Amino acid sequence: MYYPLDRQSAMEYVRKSQLMAEIFGDKDELEAVDLAEGNINLIFRVQSASAPDGRSVLIKQALPHSRRYPEIKLPLDRARIEAEMLQLQARYCPKHVPKVYLYDPEMYLTVMEDLKQCIVMRYGLMRQQWYPEFARHIGIFMAHTLFHTSDFYLSWSEKKAMVPRFINPFLCKITEDLVFTQPYIGHPNNRWTPLLRPQVEQIQCDEELRSEVLMLKAEFMCNAQALIHGDLHTGSIMVNETETKVIDPEFGFFGPMGFDIGAVLGNLALSYASQEYHAPDPQLRREYRGWLAKTIEEVWETFEAEFRRLWEVEGNAQWPSECLRDKFLRKLLQDTAGMGACKMMRRILGLAHIPDLESIEDERMRAIAEGLALNIARGWLMGRHQFTSVHDLTSVVCASRPTCPA
Amino acid sequence: MYYPLDRQSAMEYVRKSQLMAEIFGDKDELEAVDLAEGNINLIFRVQSASAPDGRSVLIKQALPHSRRYPEIKLPLDRARIEAEMLQLQARYCPKHVPKVYLYDPEMYLTVMEDLKQCIVMRYGLMRQQWYPEFARHIGIFMAHTLFHTSDFYLSWSEKKAMVPRFINPFLCKITEDLVFTQPYIGHPNNRWTPLLRPQVEQIQCDEELRSEVLMLKAEFMCNAQALIHGDLHTGSIMVNETETKVIDPEFGFFGPMGFDIGAVLGNLALSYASQEYHAPDPQLRREYRGWLAKTIEEVWETFEAEFRRLWEVEGNAQWPSECLRDKFLRKLLQDTAGMGACKMMRRILGLAHIPDLESIEDERMRAIAEGLALNIARGWLMGRHQFTSVHDLTSVVCASRPTCPA
Repeated sequence: MYYPLDRQSAMEYVRKSQLMAEIFGDKDELEAVDLAEGNINLIFRVQSASAPDGRSVLIKQALPHSRRYPEIKLPLDRARIEAEMLQLQARYCPKHVPKVYLYDPEMYLTVMEDLKQCIVMRYGLMRQQWYPEFARHIGIFMAHTLFHTSDFYLSWSEKKAMVPRFINPFLCKITEDLVFTQPYIGHPNNRWTPLLRPQVEQIQCDEELRSEVLMLKAEFMCNAQALIHGDLHTGSIMVNETETKVIDPEFGFFGPMGFDIGAVLGNLALSYASQEYHAPDPQLRREYRGWLAKTIEEVWETFEAEFRRLWEVEGNAQWPSECLRDKFLRKLLQDTAGMGACKMMRRILGLAHIPDLESIEDERMRAIAEGLALNIARGWLMGRHQFTSVHDLTSVVCASRPTCPA
Repeated sequence: MYYPLDRQSAMEYVRKSQLMAEIFGDKDELEAVDLAEGNINLIFRVQSASAPDGRSVLIKQALPHSRRYPEIKLPLDRARIEAEMLQLQARYCPKHVPKVYLYDPEMYLTVMEDLKQCIVMRYGLMRQQWYPEFARHIGIFMAHTLFHTSDFYLSWSEKKAMVPRFINPFLCKITEDLVFTQPYIGHPNNRWTPLLRPQVEQIQCDEELRSEVLMLKAEFMCNAQALIHGDLHTGSIMVNETETKVIDPEFGFFGPMGFDIGAVLGNLALSYASQEYHAPDPQLRREYRGWLAKTIEEVWETFEAEFRRLWEVEGNAQWPSECLRDKFLRKLLQDTAGMGACKMMRRILGLAHIPDLESIEDERMRAIAEGLALNIARGWLMGRHQFTSVHDLTSVVCASRPTCPA
């Protein structure tokens, strides 16, 4: 029977579970902390009070509505999707997802590995942290999760049996609205830095640009290429110098691969733009932006090399063509640029913003960084049909300038 | 409880059903004829013996295997898909599908309108029949069925609720193999006129061409744009001078719209090529080919105009952009050309051939007609990325010549 946990019941839930034997010592005193992170779900850390150095787990439980905005109803089933996504991703890429200890289908909760040793990547980028393993890790993660849930690997019957388990209409609808629709019309949910008005109006009046976004929206809604994470921004990635963990796949569904890759690259480009403020020293800014641009290239290059390797080694017999791989990956790069562009613009024009930019208190400075991000996004979106290499994406990044506010 | 019908039990089935009151008179003597058409299903005509002028119904029942090739196992569920497809199509385009009188889910059978007044279109084309209403009818049919099952009309929740009912893995797999795979490799199922050997080898060795086909196959497998008929060739269309009826939608699933439109246009182009034999008189051949080319254009133009009209009048609020419509329809035309090309080539290189070409007994003549069809298909497939109007397709048709066999 479902009931929402509080600190006390979260602790008791763990005490009565198999986890006492598996994770904790039978004698461990437990305590629970309400992490209250995110807008959507309940999250508790349950840890051993007697052995504070170590043992802990996270409990993530779905509510039938948003935690922060209770008037927004949400399907509990997202908890099942997230748990099944984590288990599938663990099958192909165990190093880069938190371990699931248990999923309770009646309570719509997952108990999982507590990644205390990592931080949310976005915050590290805001402090110019270098993550030397990140590009390789995330490239490998995307290659494995996307390849192994595509028709290039799964048999016709396996994939078609999986599709209905991951249709996820409600959470897809959120993306359709917030990423592909509202930012491009005068919608009451939208929110943007007032100094950007000329640039925002230019975007919202640009029929050519809007139609490119809508073509990508149609692809998001129809193109069931692989089981994608669906929300793979730098707030869904936890890192330290040596580890990279992808969390929060509750938006997972069979969709276009470029939406995941574009989310990663687009959020790196957003960080690039935000360094206008976060790295005031010109030398440091130049160096860190150089690292970010190089990381964009390495993410794609790792992804592409690994995806090709998997296709060659594990691909099913239906796709035996080198020339197809070239074509497919060129098209995927173009999709990635388009999807990445949409993921950037929604963070500046739409409802949900990101700390990288929101933390810039000075409005003029924020408008400069955001204007730069919008220009990068426009370059990716409108130029992508000619892109043949990831260097075309980073050329746009490095050549773009802020549109200085009046 | 399921049992396969024979003539006797087919007659009794109707006698015990509500159809005696609805279709027949209570006093009617019934008789059943085994039509034994097609390779797959049982088909009986049950008619009034006492009123031979008129009243009759068709019974179509699925077997757990192919009727003609019992070693090929087939899912009975295809009967449900066909019945649901017919009912959905009837909702949006009742004029152009046979009426369903009843679907029996235990018997996997549909009793439907008997279209005695129509003939299978393919055979009419082989005798140079003109169908002045056909282009308009089929264009309207495709516009309505495709538009009304797409995201441009259905709400996010409606479409996503429909998708799992029409996944149809087994019948899709048949198409994946027979249309997009086997014809392009040296597969034992393949069969082609020996004189075509040089042309066939050229196709099968052309990596660029094969990769284009595989890109279309990926689209066929992933791109759930609309609930498509899935097998819309001129053998699935029944016509007379004033009527057009689309039958046999058991391959229905959410797939790319261009696959249906391409099937129609590709089969008209196959007929065009086959007139090399069927219309030996040069004047008649020229005229009939002119009508076929004009029909290709009118089918697309009717489809496009009606699709645009529906989008404007009934489209949901998520897609408000004229520029998007232009882009979407240009891309759809290009998909149509590619899919149509694949539908043409499989009929010459693959397992299942068509009477238009198979009826040509003289091997040299058949090779000339088939070689012409292959050249049209190549022109559509490889040229399509530059196509902007249906005249680009008919220009290829009219400019193509047979590759004369050695």
